[in-house]
Amino acid sequence: MAHIKLLNEELPGIVGLLNYRPETAKPLLELAETLLRGESTLTSGEREIIAASVSYWNQCHFCHTSHAAAAAAHLQSGLSIIDDIKAGLPQTNVSDKLRALLNIAHQVQRGGKHVTETDIAAAVELGATDQEIHDTVLIAAAFCMYNRYVDGLGTWAPVPNEAYEEMGQRMAHVGYGKA
Amino acid sequence: MAHIKLLNEELPGIVGLLNYRPETAKPLLELAETLLRGESTLTSGEREIIAASVSYWNQCHFCHTSHAAAAAAHLQSGLSIIDDIKAGLPQTNVSDKLRALLNIAHQVQRGGKHVTETDIAAAVELGATDQEIHDTVLIAAAFCMYNRYVDGLGTWAPVPNEAYEEMGQRMAHVGYGKA
Repeated sequence: MAHIKLLNEELPGIVGLLNYRPETAKPLLELAETLLRGESTLTSGEREIIAASVSYWNQCHFCHTSHAAAAAAHLQSGLSIIDDIKAGLPQTNVSDKLRALLNIAHQVQRGGKHVTETDIAAAVELGATDQEIHDTVLIAAAFCMYNRYVDGLGTWAPVPNEAYEEMGQRMAHVGYGKA
Repeated sequence: MAHIKLLNEELPGIVGLLNYRPETAKPLLELAETLLRGESTLTSGEREIIAASVSYWNQCHFCHTSHAAAAAAHLQSGLSIIDDIKAGLPQTNVSDKLRALLNIAHQVQRGGKHVTETDIAAAVELGATDQEIHDTVLIAAAFCMYNRYVDGLGTWAPVPNEAYEEMGQRMAHVGYGKA
């Protein structure tokens, strides 16, 4: 049970929190929509992989599994990508540029000051643009927020990967904040 | 110098980043405005103390000092509160309820799963409402984002506390996103 009395306790993870406080839900959803589905030279599949990886590093089961399922929906990869993200994507065909951006995201997850000139130079060397680096850092930072919001208020989350399939499809193809 | 080429390198901290990417600036500013200046039974001074404390724990000099200066502006306390926040507020008259909420914020800063039933019960015992607990968790989580955004992209920040006085006045009395 969540640490506070939600309006609808059946709603899992961040869903119950967005329902509880519409004033903060609005910018939180708009930020996710812009970062994950807005215009970008990174595909939405790549951006959902970054979001799901950061959530896994933060041990947020709800955010990890739902965003990995959204990546699966974008990439038509099947749900096996959920566990592959936990393992560092050995089975998924991702570009070297995305791997360098994931390294930056991991540094951000540890703390902003962990990002080094070397981390940035490695991504630039593999073709990452300034805006791709900017968006990677902000996606990683934003999921350090969403993850803490979801777990800091003690929300519940379905356990099995399969429970997230439909949610991932909706996140990928309908979007954030469009019920 | 920042890790990416900003449009105006003179703008410090998050200001240069908001200027670089207006699409993400909009929800980021709306979230800060709602959390720190929107309707709440916590005063804006109390909420800025939470924001500044989390930023200090994350070692983000720009966010700590600017939000502590905003707290000073709300509370008309003078800039000495900036260093007092670093020390855990021994010199500032804050309620026991706020101290319990600051404890929750500190747990969120460490990671969402650090928040315990005991932390929540202590705040409730001192009169904290569910919405105050919700907002405290989300403020703490949001500053784990803003701090990582600012430091993860290597932005610059003025050093002395006095350099933040006018910024704090503007954040407190004009607000976020209203230039």
